[in-house]
Amino acid sequence: MTYDPIDYLPYDFANRRHIGPSPEEMARMFEVLGVSDLDALIEETVPAAIRQAEPLDFGKPLSERELLYRMKQVAGKNTVMTSLIGQGYHGTVTPPAILRNIFENPAWYTAYTPYQPEISQGRLEALLNYQTMICDLTGLEVANASLLDEATACAEAMTMAGRVAKTKAKAFFVDENCHPQNIAVMKTRAEPLGIEVVVGDPEALDAASVFGAIFQYPGTFGHVRDLTAQMEALHAAGAVGIVSADPMALCLLKEPAAMGADIAVGSTQRFGVPLGYGGPHAAYMACREDCKRAMPGRIVGVSIDSHGNKAYRLALQTREQHIRREKATSNVCTAQALLAVMAGFYAVFHGPKGLRAIAQRIHRKTVRLAKGLEAAGFAVEPKQFFDTITVDVGLLQRGVLQAAVQQGLNLRRVGKTRVGITLDERTRPATIEAVWRAFGLVRKDEDFDAGYRLPEGLVRQTDYLQHDVFHMNRAETEMMRYMRRLADRDLALDRAMIPLGSCTMKLNSAAEMMPVSWDEFSKIHPYAPKDQAAGYAEMIHDLSAKLCTITGYDAFSMQPNSGAQGEYAGLLTIRDWQAARGEGQRNVCLIPTNAHGTNPASAQMVGWKVVAVKCDAQGSIDLDDFRAKAAKHSDALAACMITYPSTHGVFEETVKEVCAITHEHGGQVYIDGANMNAMVGLSRPGDLGGDVSHLNLHKTFCIPHGGGGPGMGPIGVKEHLAPHLPGDPLSGKVGPVSASAFGSPSLLPISWAYILMMGGEGLTQATRVAILNANYIAKRLEGAYDVLYRGGKGRVAHECILDTRPFEKSAGVTVEDIAKRLVDCGFHAPTMSWPVAGTLMVEPTESETKAELDRFCDAMLAIREEIRAIEDGKIDAEKNPLKLAPHTMEDLVKEWDRPYSREQGCFPPGAFRVDKYWPPVNRVDNVFGDRNLVCTCPPMSDYAEAAE
Amino acid sequence: MTYDPIDYLPYDFANRRHIGPSPEEMARMFEVLGVSDLDALIEETVPAAIRQAEPLDFGKPLSERELLYRMKQVAGKNTVMTSLIGQGYHGTVTPPAILRNIFENPAWYTAYTPYQPEISQGRLEALLNYQTMICDLTGLEVANASLLDEATACAEAMTMAGRVAKTKAKAFFVDENCHPQNIAVMKTRAEPLGIEVVVGDPEALDAASVFGAIFQYPGTFGHVRDLTAQMEALHAAGAVGIVSADPMALCLLKEPAAMGADIAVGSTQRFGVPLGYGGPHAAYMACREDCKRAMPGRIVGVSIDSHGNKAYRLALQTREQHIRREKATSNVCTAQALLAVMAGFYAVFHGPKGLRAIAQRIHRKTVRLAKGLEAAGFAVEPKQFFDTITVDVGLLQRGVLQAAVQQGLNLRRVGKTRVGITLDERTRPATIEAVWRAFGLVRKDEDFDAGYRLPEGLVRQTDYLQHDVFHMNRAETEMMRYMRRLADRDLALDRAMIPLGSCTMKLNSAAEMMPVSWDEFSKIHPYAPKDQAAGYAEMIHDLSAKLCTITGYDAFSMQPNSGAQGEYAGLLTIRDWQAARGEGQRNVCLIPTNAHGTNPASAQMVGWKVVAVKCDAQGSIDLDDFRAKAAKHSDALAACMITYPSTHGVFEETVKEVCAITHEHGGQVYIDGANMNAMVGLSRPGDLGGDVSHLNLHKTFCIPHGGGGPGMGPIGVKEHLAPHLPGDPLSGKVGPVSASAFGSPSLLPISWAYILMMGGEGLTQATRVAILNANYIAKRLEGAYDVLYRGGKGRVAHECILDTRPFEKSAGVTVEDIAKRLVDCGFHAPTMSWPVAGTLMVEPTESETKAELDRFCDAMLAIREEIRAIEDGKIDAEKNPLKLAPHTMEDLVKEWDRPYSREQGCFPPGAFRVDKYWPPVNRVDNVFGDRNLVCTCPPMSDYAEAAE
Repeated sequence: MTYDPIDYLPYDFANRRHIGPSPEEMARMFEVLGVSDLDALIEETVPAAIRQAEPLDFGKPLSERELLYRMKQVAGKNTVMTSLIGQGYHGTVTPPAILRNIFENPAWYTAYTPYQPEISQGRLEALLNYQTMICDLTGLEVANASLLDEATACAEAMTMAGRVAKTKAKAFFVDENCHPQNIAVMKTRAEPLGIEVVVGDPEALDAASVFGAIFQYPGTFGHVRDLTAQMEALHAAGAVGIVSADPMALCLLKEPAAMGADIAVGSTQRFGVPLGYGGPHAAYMACREDCKRAMPGRIVGVSIDSHGNKAYRLALQTREQHIRREKATSNVCTAQALLAVMAGFYAVFHGPKGLRAIAQRIHRKTVRLAKGLEAAGFAVEPKQFFDTITVDVGLLQRGVLQAAVQQGLNLRRVGKTRVGITLDERTRPATIEAVWRAFGLVRKDEDFDAGYRLPEGLVRQTDYLQHDVFHMNRAETEMMRYMRRLADRDLALDRAMIPLGSCTMKLNSAAEMMPVSWDEFSKIHPYAPKDQAAGYAEMIHDLSAKLCTITGYDAFSMQPNSGAQGEYAGLLTIRDWQAARGEGQRNVCLIPTNAHGTNPASAQMVGWKVVAVKCDAQGSIDLDDFRAKAAKHSDALAACMITYPSTHGVFEETVKEVCAITHEHGGQVYIDGANMNAMVGLSRPGDLGGDVSHLNLHKTFCIPHGGGGPGMGPIGVKEHLAPHLPGDPLSGKVGPVSASAFGSPSLLPISWAYILMMGGEGLTQATRVAILNANYIAKRLEGAYDVLYRGGKGRVAHECILDTRPFEKSAGVTVEDIAKRLVDCGFHAPTMSWPVAGTLMVEPTESETKAELDRFCDAMLAIREEIRAIEDGKIDAEKNPLKLAPHTMEDLVKEWDRPYSREQGCFPPGAFRVDKYWPPVNRVDNVFGDRNLVCTCPPMSDYAEAAE
Repeated sequence: MTYDPIDYLPYDFANRRHIGPSPEEMARMFEVLGVSDLDALIEETVPAAIRQAEPLDFGKPLSERELLYRMKQVAGKNTVMTSLIGQGYHGTVTPPAILRNIFENPAWYTAYTPYQPEISQGRLEALLNYQTMICDLTGLEVANASLLDEATACAEAMTMAGRVAKTKAKAFFVDENCHPQNIAVMKTRAEPLGIEVVVGDPEALDAASVFGAIFQYPGTFGHVRDLTAQMEALHAAGAVGIVSADPMALCLLKEPAAMGADIAVGSTQRFGVPLGYGGPHAAYMACREDCKRAMPGRIVGVSIDSHGNKAYRLALQTREQHIRREKATSNVCTAQALLAVMAGFYAVFHGPKGLRAIAQRIHRKTVRLAKGLEAAGFAVEPKQFFDTITVDVGLLQRGVLQAAVQQGLNLRRVGKTRVGITLDERTRPATIEAVWRAFGLVRKDEDFDAGYRLPEGLVRQTDYLQHDVFHMNRAETEMMRYMRRLADRDLALDRAMIPLGSCTMKLNSAAEMMPVSWDEFSKIHPYAPKDQAAGYAEMIHDLSAKLCTITGYDAFSMQPNSGAQGEYAGLLTIRDWQAARGEGQRNVCLIPTNAHGTNPASAQMVGWKVVAVKCDAQGSIDLDDFRAKAAKHSDALAACMITYPSTHGVFEETVKEVCAITHEHGGQVYIDGANMNAMVGLSRPGDLGGDVSHLNLHKTFCIPHGGGGPGMGPIGVKEHLAPHLPGDPLSGKVGPVSASAFGSPSLLPISWAYILMMGGEGLTQATRVAILNANYIAKRLEGAYDVLYRGGKGRVAHECILDTRPFEKSAGVTVEDIAKRLVDCGFHAPTMSWPVAGTLMVEPTESETKAELDRFCDAMLAIREEIRAIEDGKIDAEKNPLKLAPHTMEDLVKEWDRPYSREQGCFPPGAFRVDKYWPPVNRVDNVFGDRNLVCTCPPMSDYAEAAE
């Protein structure tokens, strides 16, 4: 009797689930590529000189089931308490329908940033709802689609004020009532830019001495202050007034615009987004109409499509860092799209009446709490408040805080004698009674009347959320269908490959995603006592250690909330180290011309001068130019910023030399980790000579893109830099770049899970297959498209650049035409016009199967034939499937007067048949939208018109 | 300063989330109906005489958040242990991608039974995969799309054997190695049908004396026996051979067909479906080609659509109980579609190689376990096995079982001296070592070689799962997209109203669904020690009490797994009570002609004679006929079965009299709970005179339909019947109707959550709004369609029957044409041709908003105009939008030669525009499919042909 060998591992996550091509598929791909095996291909692709010495080894990888078990153990080491700490983070109720249908739905969380508007109308509408909500609540005219967190939003508002102020003053006033983490991050941002931050009492504001001022509303200790006088004084001096406001409070309180504010910022966390030990959450920013072009971040706007129908898209993109590079004044790139969508839906779920009722209940509970304490003679401040009070308990502070913990409550330690208490929509009568008990009081909630203690003149007089979307029927059936309809309008990773060069749209597996929604990770306040976050600590410790092994660095900071913030944090670390050793004068940063646009923008933000280094015809750094410029700026050389493998998708053999030159001249090497997916297990930036790198956990380490955020950009550094990493925002240490010590920690289980399930060998194999997949595409498209920039042996790295520039001349076909035509084929376009204008950069990642790669190649080859038909004069240069792409159902229903068939138009090779994805709009007109900027929901009547 | 009153409750689940129409919408609906308010409408609708005395009061309803908190507390009272009890239930690994994308995805779980094939192609394909898997594993030609559980599948196989056997023998042989619950349920089923069940050793089978025999493979104590000789003997005697086989074992063992079995049954639970304390899981049944018409349950088959393209649909429906009524020999109606889909996907995920590897690993672990015990001198039986061994430990039994519990393990108590151990794919080396420790042995897993102990002649020689779908690339990316594509082909409740009369497709809210996936509910073995299920006990106790209050009954049994099984269990209860009081002769059941088809089928199954009672022109029971027949059969009257409100959607005022007459003549009253959604809070069947009712928890109490199951049909009874309720299948008591004491207990959190969040008032309001919604539709369609059967005041109950029969004569338009045309409008058709042939029965439920009702009414009115155009000769009687419905994208792409426009064809009123639902096939040809029955996946080449 014989049995099969049992070498087949059904629960091998790396090779069975994460990596796309099966062994059989890979064998066929090797044939196409003319290599014997994967080893041979990697040999030809990754130079021996840069290969790492030891293979990655993290022991036996876990199966999905083992992972979830391990994760549960670690999660269990966190303690879920009721946190009444406030300080910008609040208990909230996530409607289960939103949790299940958005937060846990791959159709939402695997989507990419909506740069291709035709396939993103669903989340663009959801984000427009969010912007409308922000505009309404703040009273301002323009809102963006979210920023990383409230503290960075404050910092962005500060620098934005600098851009729009009509005064030459160099100082910036910060209300001492601002949350400490906001003050800390603004100080970090201000220092390199030469902005003097003055922290003080709003009553003492000297408007003439500043270019702007920011006030917290309500203040961190609970005060609610009318800021009208301050705004008037600022305006009189040509300065800008900023309010950092709690959107829940704005449901009852006078809106910032009514007090004269120019800019408002804040966090929408308490609109249904879990605490998550600090993130991710969506911060908001809104401003007056006349400042809109100075506003950082993404803005969703309304435009029209080629048929004149209403269509959404990202507006004013020419403001952004990838266009403005070193002229940019912000490096903001990622938003918090998924969380903004959730917060917007929270408002749709509740409508103005519901939000108002929630806010009222929070306030009335706070009044009751205060009365109970006052009745016992405690010194409660302020007298009028929204949801926060501060009690001076003198020597009893420690006792009260400890008693509270015994009751399952976290209160806030304020100074040495005070205790802060902030209530939220989760607060129940029993919670209030427990607080009283922590103060030694035994009394009943019902013994105290509620009532109102809002300042007379600050009660909101205006309506909000008047648009129909906030007045739709809010039955769950209707809400569920609305969420489904929006999801269906978009093309995300759950339906097709998104072959975006430099963006690494790989599998976000269900097992990796599940722990994120667990209470033990999602219901922890960022400033809860550390012993309540022991599970987080264990995970962060182990994840950091593994990332060090992967990168060759010695320490990691999880603080940066995005890749760009990672760059910024990394440069700050270098700068701090140099200052500490007396070389604070160093301020030149060498950056090759093909760098990510955020690189020069980040350098700018730390006050450095960007010196561009040329690239050669191969897209590689021009070593002579690099050497010359390093020498020229030797005394001032702070750093170089390079990307490896290069943004051209090539493993440059000179990388070690570039690092050596930089070090020779006293500079530090920043290696951008955007392309780390081509390196894990094969090569380590720390070994190449890098001193700092950020990793995009949302690219290489499986955090989903969420339709444009969240992201995570932790930085790894060599030992000498470790003491200079960004500090805890509450530690008083300089340099925090975001509000919470670990950025968006509730996302970390995803990356940790990925590493634990892949193991060292699996991670390395993923890298190898990513390279295989890219080379397979390059090979299959050979002859149809020129591939720019190959390595010495004719191979590309994990992505390849297709040259589509010749077709503009030969057929009048632009890269955009090809991108839109790919929508007809059921694909998100590759990265357009970056790093080379007029080209497409394709990155399939390791997660795509050969079948999906072939579907893409078939589509691209067919498009090439369509172009040829134009070149050959066989079809009209204007009326052809490329120029009229994408095709919609409306096109099919209407009279068809095109020189090609409906079939050819709508079902090009690659397109699914019954499972065809139909874009909801035809090609979107960007110019129209920017010229007629509308960034809140248009009245429903507009839609009716458009439909007619 | 004034504030809004705070009477708005944002977290009022009943009125804010569950009930569709908003107060404003309701006001407009009252206007249309010409009533002042809801009270007035209910006054006109529900006769005062049948109203309940006291309003429902369950105290303060819980918000979603409070519910989840409470649920967590209760769940925490269950103890999750590693159960090695076996006996048909096994630890399994649910792939997280299946859990998230199917089990937790409303697109899958809110779908209805695929009776309308054009909008069900996705789940039909998934179920066809499942059937193919079953056919392959068992080696038999035909499989159905699942049955309720293994025990009922055994019982169904027994009665099926009776139908196909070529002998007149009346006895049925049951292998003593069958699982005890299977034996118990077969005995229950056999007794009323006069089948003598002979339980014995397979070696002692007297084939000549039986019409069929069933064997467990492997046996419940682990034996694996070659049954070829038994099958040959049975066939020689004209009897039928049945094997109840573990599908996991079949991955290694000779398949039943190879031993000559005619029928195979079993449970697919261990293919990735959580234990759930007993259910729901999908049982399977397969048979030889020549028995297929005798097979109960739903069968998915392959057919063609009107363009000749391949299309799936339910086959051989004329066999089913709703057609055959009292001639039916099974009342099986609900399947376990959602769970069958999961099990099928488990096979797709793993493929034959993966399944084989999993089975091998289970077996080899068992070998190792046995060796360890044998080495210590324990008496291990059998010597050859798959995954189960039994150890005789003499007096040590209790000690070993207790020691095991201390190790976190549940072993099986077998007799008084033996212990059973069954391993599964979750078993780890540490588990095996813990078992050894429970036997007092300290040894290491690695000290023992694995190896094989399968009987030589029973090693499987044939391949399985050879179809392409089981060989597709199994990367999660690909799997996720496949699941998404299938989901997108179907129209479920997450996209549109499903206005199915008698099926009550209401909201299945996210909060209600969430606890079902929690480990504390899903990972409990049904035969685990009771103290490990204290949370379940608490929930079941409270839910039962609340259902008693709602229905006016005194006791509940949760055992029935479907409504039809509830009917059957209820009748058995009556029968048992009557036998106990010496009236066992009673065997006549009065059933009105408009009853659900399952009623007569169920009566048949308890051995009763069905006497039909006429209905009057109003569709109400003809009281005179009822009285006369009750009198005529007075001595033999066992029961009557009525539905209230009637299946015609009317609150019959005579109901109490019907009950009284029945009681007068010594009969019991069974009130079918199918229409309970029109009664909750208004009227109680127990008060009307009912003695027993089943409740469809999957209709009235929010368990989703899962695309055709799971269901739950618990029964409530008056006090005198309580001792006669079905017993625990392991108690030895007669009468269990399903394998686990509480049916499918892991679904109960859904209904419990619903009741807790609605509260008494909310539940009552739901009933009232269900009635409002139905009357609103009836009113809006007045003039266009005749509404059959109204109450005295011209109102309908919670559903209404639209008479579409006249159009057949006036325009040649059938009810099917209208149903298919509704697909174009984006709707699932109402119930077709039931209870009156040629009509549509509409039940909107309380969860639909006025906007959705209007969308439906607009569609129906437009269809009426389309009919009128035919009547008026304005459009061809064959080439019109009704006859050619539904329209597909293919129609749009092709040449259009129809006398109406593409626009008219594809976008009739009601249809969404950009969010249009496109059926993947044109109208499906049922006759073709039945004539050419194919119920496994056709080869891929067929698809290619069809596509050409």
